[in-house]
Amino acid sequence: MAVGSGDLGTLHIVDGVRIGTASAGIKKPGRIDTVVFELTEGSAVAGVFTLNAFCAAPVTLSKKHLAAASPRYLLINTGNANAGTGAIGLADAVASCVALATEVSVTPEQVLPFSTGVIGEKLPVDKLIAALPASIKSLSADGWERAANGIMTTDTRPKATSRQIQIDGRTITVTGISKGAGMIKPNMATMLGYVATDAAIAPDMLQGMLDIAADASFNRITIDGDTSTNDSCILVATGRAGGDLLSVSEGPIFEALQAVFNEVFLELAHAIVRDGEGATKFVAVEVAGAKDVSEALKVAYAVAESPLVKTALFASDPNWGRILAAIGRAGVDALDVSTLTVHLGDVLITENGGRAASYTEAAGAAVMKQSEITISINLNRGQHSETVWTTDFSYDYVKINAEYRS
Amino acid sequence: MAVGSGDLGTLHIVDGVRIGTASAGIKKPGRIDTVVFELTEGSAVAGVFTLNAFCAAPVTLSKKHLAAASPRYLLINTGNANAGTGAIGLADAVASCVALATEVSVTPEQVLPFSTGVIGEKLPVDKLIAALPASIKSLSADGWERAANGIMTTDTRPKATSRQIQIDGRTITVTGISKGAGMIKPNMATMLGYVATDAAIAPDMLQGMLDIAADASFNRITIDGDTSTNDSCILVATGRAGGDLLSVSEGPIFEALQAVFNEVFLELAHAIVRDGEGATKFVAVEVAGAKDVSEALKVAYAVAESPLVKTALFASDPNWGRILAAIGRAGVDALDVSTLTVHLGDVLITENGGRAASYTEAAGAAVMKQSEITISINLNRGQHSETVWTTDFSYDYVKINAEYRS
Repeated sequence: MAVGSGDLGTLHIVDGVRIGTASAGIKKPGRIDTVVFELTEGSAVAGVFTLNAFCAAPVTLSKKHLAAASPRYLLINTGNANAGTGAIGLADAVASCVALATEVSVTPEQVLPFSTGVIGEKLPVDKLIAALPASIKSLSADGWERAANGIMTTDTRPKATSRQIQIDGRTITVTGISKGAGMIKPNMATMLGYVATDAAIAPDMLQGMLDIAADASFNRITIDGDTSTNDSCILVATGRAGGDLLSVSEGPIFEALQAVFNEVFLELAHAIVRDGEGATKFVAVEVAGAKDVSEALKVAYAVAESPLVKTALFASDPNWGRILAAIGRAGVDALDVSTLTVHLGDVLITENGGRAASYTEAAGAAVMKQSEITISINLNRGQHSETVWTTDFSYDYVKINAEYRS
Repeated sequence: MAVGSGDLGTLHIVDGVRIGTASAGIKKPGRIDTVVFELTEGSAVAGVFTLNAFCAAPVTLSKKHLAAASPRYLLINTGNANAGTGAIGLADAVASCVALATEVSVTPEQVLPFSTGVIGEKLPVDKLIAALPASIKSLSADGWERAANGIMTTDTRPKATSRQIQIDGRTITVTGISKGAGMIKPNMATMLGYVATDAAIAPDMLQGMLDIAADASFNRITIDGDTSTNDSCILVATGRAGGDLLSVSEGPIFEALQAVFNEVFLELAHAIVRDGEGATKFVAVEVAGAKDVSEALKVAYAVAESPLVKTALFASDPNWGRILAAIGRAGVDALDVSTLTVHLGDVLITENGGRAASYTEAAGAAVMKQSEITISINLNRGQHSETVWTTDFSYDYVKINAEYRS
């Protein structure tokens, strides 16, 4: 029931990255649930991680390893989040890194572990370790689509995208995958993202570029306001395309690369929203005329996360009063409701503190019937704009989340 | 599908209060949708109102009238919230007060108007005015149950309670009604509450007592995190029981009255949660060991409003990892997850940052099957405790809210 075509297009290989997949039988026998990325020596790696205080053991360990060494392998399992598992969970995550490191002759610190799935159950680490030889055996440069499938949990379809740009006569490739369908909320969610480029970028630079791209994409989407314990997003630059190492955050090469990262990240983030649990609508909430970014985001999230707005979206009901109520409770200081405007698509629905004189129910209903909807709010009190993306709230959201563990 | 018996018990009359009801056909023909309270001359009246910036016209007007005069009548309609209706909405609310005032020979400022129902549609004020003579004709002291029925919208059953206590040999009565089923959130919600006593209390005192009682009850419940444009809660003291006028906030009489108000308000607030839209569970989230009230409430609301926790409650699934994830994202500064504990009923589910050693799925499942559940979280970092009450998130919540306007 995802929104939009979901066509992955051509996924270009990224020179210096090989991907292997296997079935460890962590939750269901036979399902691909283990993915290994091999990164060529000298790759720069940057990461952003969940802010949830109950972060999962692999998140703790990935952050530690990333600070200590240059990563050569990423090890991802689905079916079990290894979160809320205390000291045993951390020991299990360490054991999986040690096992992979031994298999491929690197140090354990050069392996970054990632887990997603049910929270609070012990990771069946023996099963995961047993699947490592098969994962390594299947390493190949064209494994992106297999990986996109391999990291899915309640996702109904794989998420991946790829771009090529020309810089100084060289072709630069950026390819990435993502997963996540519920528990999606700013500052990451049960969301995993892996993006790689063959451009040559200094590690410090790469972290800054990842921060910018993630902030404008993965940190601007919300399905249900819940933030996961396991969110992680990794950006790799192998340098195999050659050329000078990018080490300053200005100039046309920096700008071209940042732009393509932003594009790829936004597409991967949107793919998560389009496949939001039970989603039947893809909804952009744009807030303009805010005094600052925080104010714009407050209003955008109040609307995007209101269960009453989301159920109205599911029903294709232009119940714009619920949008007003959400704006009104967003906590904006001294909000003057008489000067703000709200558009549903290009239909003006609110002005002067009430329904717009020109508004008709038929016009509102025509917009609400579409599967992609933009709600535009202009607070008319400042210069700042922000957009967040979300979905509607359907019977299937409840069904998926009420039955997830069974 | 409400939780608990819903038996109203005996609703004692409150000397000095008469209640009339009528059908104005505001939304559906034949349904009782108009309620009038008549308060004897000299009654003290206190009110608390929604903090939503898009507050409804009747809220604006009630606040103004309450500040300007001693109320003699309360006029309540369902079927239309008269919210998001701009200048016309305010004119309609004024017109309804003028009409009632003319009919009963008081000033318009002595009428407080209240509306609940669909937001953003013009109030059919002519219909409401036409129903006033019938409302007035039916005024009687025993109208509490009719009123409880008359203020319902998506409520599945009326909400009312009554208490009598002895003070200095006099019988003091406190009787109240409430309504509200969705859009329930701290700082009021689509929630109306009317409580009256025949005790003699000075108006200023009464406002303070209402603030205390409302803060510990109506401001501690949440169904979906949405705050309504129309919430209002009124406390009336007619003084007809005689005795000295209470004018100091200390001593045994003050304490006895505050205690009975707190009890009545809490029962009315709980009744709203028990009848929450689509509710199959009545859930208390208790947070202890917090550094301050704000921290305790942050954690309690993060858990109580998490769609993932709420769908797990609906499924009777002891998916305690979702509770941990909600605590972890509540925004508590430097939260040490290794020292907090979580109980589901009397079953310890979390300690040392993970699943409790003593926990079994069977024990957790046994608690989750109950229709009344307490989630107790001890942050073990301070002395403050707070409790909020909520419900689960069911198919019917989506159904009710997706179909509300049709």
